[in-house]
Order: sequence, then C-alpha cells, then structure tokens
Amino acid sequence: MTTIQDIADKMGISKSAVSKALNNAPDISETLRKQVLETAVALGYTKLRRYRNSVRKICVLIEKDNIQYEEPYHFAYDIIMGFRQLAEPQGFDVVIEPVDIQIQRNQPYDVYMLEHDYVGSFVIGFSLADPWLKDFENSCTPTVLYDNYITGNPSTAYVGIDNDEGMELAVSHLVRQGHRKIAYLSNSLGSQIIQIRYSAFFRSMRKHGLKASYDNAGCSCFLSECMEKHLPNFLKSGMTAIICSQDTIASAALVQCQQLGYRVPEDVSIVGFDDLPIAAYTSPPLTTIRQDRTELGKSGFFALSSLLNHVSISTFLLHAQLIERKSTARISEKQ
Amino acid sequence: MTTIQDIADKMGISKSAVSKALNNAPDISETLRKQVLETAVALGYTKLRRYRNSVRKICVLIEKDNIQYEEPYHFAYDIIMGFRQLAEPQGFDVVIEPVDIQIQRNQPYDVYMLEHDYVGSFVIGFSLADPWLKDFENSCTPTVLYDNYITGNPSTAYVGIDNDEGMELAVSHLVRQGHRKIAYLSNSLGSQIIQIRYSAFFRSMRKHGLKASYDNAGCSCFLSECMEKHLPNFLKSGMTAIICSQDTIASAALVQCQQLGYRVPEDVSIVGFDDLPIAAYTSPPLTTIRQDRTELGKSGFFALSSLLNHVSISTFLLHAQLIERKSTARISEKQ
Repeated sequence: MTTIQDIADKMGISKSAVSKALNNAPDISETLRKQVLETAVALGYTKLRRYRNSVRKICVLIEKDNIQYEEPYHFAYDIIMGFRQLAEPQGFDVVIEPVDIQIQRNQPYDVYMLEHDYVGSFVIGFSLADPWLKDFENSCTPTVLYDNYITGNPSTAYVGIDNDEGMELAVSHLVRQGHRKIAYLSNSLGSQIIQIRYSAFFRSMRKHGLKASYDNAGCSCFLSECMEKHLPNFLKSGMTAIICSQDTIASAALVQCQQLGYRVPEDVSIVGFDDLPIAAYTSPPLTTIRQDRTELGKSGFFALSSLLNHVSISTFLLHAQLIERKSTARISEKQ
Repeated sequence: MTTIQDIADKMGISKSAVSKALNNAPDISETLRKQVLETAVALGYTKLRRYRNSVRKICVLIEKDNIQYEEPYHFAYDIIMGFRQLAEPQGFDVVIEPVDIQIQRNQPYDVYMLEHDYVGSFVIGFSLADPWLKDFENSCTPTVLYDNYITGNPSTAYVGIDNDEGMELAVSHLVRQGHRKIAYLSNSLGSQIIQIRYSAFFRSMRKHGLKASYDNAGCSCFLSECMEKHLPNFLKSGMTAIICSQDTIASAALVQCQQLGYRVPEDVSIVGFDDLPIAAYTSPPLTTIRQDRTELGKSGFFALSSLLNHVSISTFLLHAQLIERKSTARISEKQ
C-alpha cells in the first residue's frame, strides 16, 4: 500500500510537504499541489485515502453541454432524484458536479476525484468526444456510466435501458399494425447509445424479414437536416412509419409531416424514444419507448454501491417499455 | 384480479371444486386438476396466490441433462451456493429442481410453477432446444436465466458474465504476446452463450485488425471432431494460438496438441473459458477467462429479488477476468 512517504520519496520532497499538498494547506504552491496529486494517483494512493473518511462523498458528474438537469422537465432530473433517493439514506454525501470539456482537459479524472475526495461517481451525458472517456478505461475509481460502456476495466459499470429490446418493441409494434416500409431518423452517431439504437434498428428489421438499407435510415447532427432532407425523402419513397432515435426528433417530425401535408397517424406513424415528459403533450401524443428515469437513477446507485463493495458488475440494464399513444395506427387500406 | 370464482365461472364448475384442485385435494381427478391449473394460469391467477404465502418458495431449475451441480467441482455447484447464500437469510425457501425435456413437455412452465407454489425461479443450463425457453417469452412468473436472454418480457432477466469483454481480454492478451494467427475452437452453437462468444471472437479479431474467417474457426457438437478435424487443420495452417469456447475443450486441446508433437505454450498457446476448477490442474495449467460462479449465483438472487419487487431488470452482467497461467506465452522467435 502506498504511503505519504512513498510519494515523498518518489518526488524527492519532504513528507510534510506531501501531507500539506494533499490537505490543501495554503502555504503550498498550486504547481506543487498538482504534482503531488498526480504522483499520488500514479502510485495508487487513492485507495488508501478513501477508507479514512467516515462520511463518504460521491458525485454525479453531468456533462453540462450535452444534457440538462436543473428542472423537473429536464431529462436528467429524475435520474439524479432516483440516485439520491437510495444514496443519501445510506449515508453518502452526494454532490452534483456539472463538468465540461475544459474541466476535463485541465485535470486527469482520477486526480480530480482524489482532489475532491470523491470515492466514486455516477456519470451522465458524456459523449465519445469527452476527454475523460479515455481516462475511464484505466481509472481505478469506482465509476458508473449512464449509457456509456467501457471494456475491460473492473472499476467501471454501465447502466441503461435495454436498447436492443426497445427497438424491437418499436419495430414489432409497427409490424403488428401492418407497416412494412419503416424508416429510422437519428441524430448524430456521436454517442454510444445512439450507435446502439442505430444498429439495433437494422437487426430488428432483418429479424422481421423487412428491407433495411441506407435508404430507410437518415442520421444528422443538425435537426434541420433531419427535417428538411431525410424526412421528405422518406415520405417521397412511401415509408408509412418512422422511428426516431429520440423524442425531441420525433416531436419535430410530427410537426414537419403535418406541414408537408401528411396526417399523423393516418398517413404516417411516428415512434419516439425515451418518453420525455413532452411526449404526452405533442399533437397527437407520441407513441414511444420509455426509459424509466427514476429507476435508472436507482440502478446507478445500486451499480456504484456494488463496485464500492468489490462486486465486479459490468452491465445493468432495465427492460424497455412500449408506451402506446396516438402517433401510430394500423396502416390504412389505401396504402 | 382473478378470483377462484372467475376460474369456476370460466370452467362451469363449482368454486369448491376449483379450490380443491388448487389445494391438491385427493378427491379431484388428475385431469380436472390439470385443467384448473391451466385455466388459473390463463386468467393470471398466479399473481394473486403468491402473496398469500408467508414463507416464499423459489426454485433453482437445473437442466440436468446439460449441466452438473451435485459436487463442489461441478460447474453449477458454486452458482447455487452463491444464490442460497443471499436467498435463505432473506427468508426464502430455496428448492433445487432438476428438470429435463420430458418434464418440460408434460406441463407449461407457469402451470408447473403454480402447482409447486414457487413465486420465482433461477434457471441454469437451458439450451435453445429446451421447450420452456419458448414458455419464458410469455410467462408472468418472475424468472432469472443464467446465460439465456429473453427479449421483451418484463418478468424475465438475464444474468451472466460480460462475454464480449471476456473474448476481448483473451484476444488482446494473445496480441500483446505477439500472436497474429489466432484460431477459435467451439462446441456446438446450440446455446445462446456459445453463439455470443462465437460472434465476439470475430468482432474482437476485427477490432485488432486481424484476419478472421471460417478458416480460423471450428465448431462441432462432437469433441472428437474438434480434436481430430479442426485442431489439426489449425496447426497445419500455422495458427500460433487457439482460444476455446470452454475449459473442457481447452484441456482436451492441450493434450491433443502434445500428442501431435506440438509443445504448449512454446509452439502453440491455448486459452480456455470459464475457469473451471480443473483449469488450474491441467499440464501446463490453463490460461482462461474466469466466470466468478459464486458472484453469478448472488447476482441471480439479486436480479430475482428485483423482479419480485417490480424493478424491471433486463440484464445483469459481471466483469470477465483474465486468469493468466502457463498455457500461453510470447510467440517464439522462429515463428
């Protein structure tokens, strides 16, 4: 086990200087403090320190540029509530930490965690472009990622809904209603979950013996491109149903179809994904695949507490659920 | 909620006859008893009955023709121990039920569970050929399957290790040792997990930029065919490493290589899967991918208790772990 002496030896400085740096003493320069923290992490000192605390601090890391969480109608709000509902009664001190790419560039993840005295984290909203996603591969801090998966690091776990199942529920719902020409409209494939949903669409179509090629799938990071290019193409080529990668895209597609003179669901059925609070208040209300966000938050805490107790959980998925509202219907006779 | 009256009305018999049939009274014919049970299940009576019991009975269903469990060195022994370790202290009565195809053909799964008064089950060793695997798709009994996955039924969950990660650990271990020509030797693809490992091998090889085609993969349900056909082919075509789908195959491959005049690991490296107790006692001891069986059993109970508490868990995977022993080595210079 690494001691303060080991850090001092490695750096060629005194034990008391190391101790001061680790305890944020005011008479230590910022540069030295950073070097001490980095050396401590490199020598595996994190683990030692954690067990000294009586109140254990954990954090929810939110990528604030990708996801909103402050208000009850924001996507991450209920996830955080579910997490706190289980964590706080068990004596954990939960801190919500909004981070952006700049914070991640400033400091390696394990150093950040050590500096803030966090024993573990629940990570929400990170995309493949976030620098710490690389750090998670070798981190030794217990870390649970919502909708991100790290291979081969026993300190990390992945929590989410079963997206394969969700897509299969969407496709088979449409197939039962007689649809055969089904398209898929997606935002950019810059996150793991959007990639998983994209390939799940093709798998599910093949499973039902339906044609699926680039023609019935459109992806773009710009909503305008989805609405002005992909969606009109789908309608022109006779698609009778469109599955969208997220409810926000589905609700825009609803409006756009109507503006182009198509009735929903009489002419075209639309399915969303996530069951955001808005999904019940579009016109018509949106058929969608629910992620139960409170349960996801609870699952996040369960997975983190497993990792903290050395149960090496890798993946924890919840069942997806089809919520049938008014944006889908049996295909009409004329088609 | 379905009542005894509903069952009586549906069948056109008296309430007391239904009650007698459900309670195994001796003066009711076997045929009538079966009809009552089947009607009760069809009407969703299972759920009602469960909450009447103070001691809740759950079972571990073992496919006795596929898997052994009685002795400490058998594969399923530790899984069952892990399951009981958590279940019994929580007041559950755990019954081990060995079943075969005949039992499954005799009775639908939900009827079997109702008849035995089980509120849930942990299912081990079922292959795709087992009749109840179809029943699980529509069952309303909380059911956790080890190494089998059912899409779209919120009453079922899947527990196992992360096989994708396990295969990636095996391939990247060999790649670090300089191997490029890696083969995969598998038993029949008649179970979901063996199928998952098979496709994970190709994904992992592609990820490392290595050639993988039918040439470097052999599957057979006969061990003799693996040893006398596939293995010699691999050796002739210059493979320097062989990953096996299970430790039993790997241990046979070890001996067969040696009999064909190849040294392990000097000429050819061999990796197993599972870390069965025997893996440490082959000559040389086997490098393998560990499934922690006690943890798997505990995970099985955790998932079942989640389902019983209406947390709709779909998938619970544990991290795989590379156990490096002596059957793999850095590729020798001459190759």
